[in-house]
Amino acid sequence: MHFLTLSTPDLDAAREFYVRGLGWDPLLDVPGEILFFQTGPGTVLGLFDAGKFAADLGVPDASPARGVTLAHNVDSEEAVRAAVGAMTAAGGTVRTAPRPGAFGGIYHAHVADPNGVVWEIAHNPGWRVDDDGTVHLG
Amino acid sequence: MHFLTLSTPDLDAAREFYVRGLGWDPLLDVPGEILFFQTGPGTVLGLFDAGKFAADLGVPDASPARGVTLAHNVDSEEAVRAAVGAMTAAGGTVRTAPRPGAFGGIYHAHVADPNGVVWEIAHNPGWRVDDDGTVHLG
Repeated sequence: MHFLTLSTPDLDAAREFYVRGLGWDPLLDVPGEILFFQTGPGTVLGLFDAGKFAADLGVPDASPARGVTLAHNVDSEEAVRAAVGAMTAAGGTVRTAPRPGAFGGIYHAHVADPNGVVWEIAHNPGWRVDDDGTVHLG
Repeated sequence: MHFLTLSTPDLDAAREFYVRGLGWDPLLDVPGEILFFQTGPGTVLGLFDAGKFAADLGVPDASPARGVTLAHNVDSEEAVRAAVGAMTAAGGTVRTAPRPGAFGGIYHAHVADPNGVVWEIAHNPGWRVDDDGTVHLG
């Protein structure tokens, strides 16, 4: 997977949150159209204007992205709480406060961006990544 | 971004499509719960049972993932057509047939998996990735 593209009703609010609030550096920013960020090695997140997203797919429905969470893993439970604080300060909305997850010793929280895109901030002791990018779970 | 998790109504259909149809090797497969695939260096796609996805977020609505596309870039227009053919043979549904995109010299198609998750298969001449995973656009 090289790009993840999300239907985004309010690109200006997204820019305010990610760029001004969280300090992310866009890979490309085409106002009114699309905002790209690199989110990992070889991986790009595209926030695509909802109307243009729908037109590109040939559908009438310009609904925002739903039923998707983007997870960012951090090193400790304390780091989960710190990241949630930073996202809230930037204008994010807490959906679930930091708490133990259902399985795997996970400790996590969910924070929505201004378009309702949900980030899961997690400490997952069973997750590790080798230097070559190979992921191990559990 | 370390994980992308999608609300998935029919995990068995997802397994049939990605594992049996496309030959992907799951990182972890917990029937009835979640199916994980590594989709890039350090990046994991989680197909999470829709009911459990909703419960995890503390919401009643177990809608499938919508307003999201996952893009896979390939080397040529011919490779776009070949990938679309392979996904269709595995049970995918063509949403937009291979065609030039709106900008950037892109040639692409959209194919939905059995849960309605849309993959964009694209040849994007303006996109390249350095050995260290740094992405360049345009």
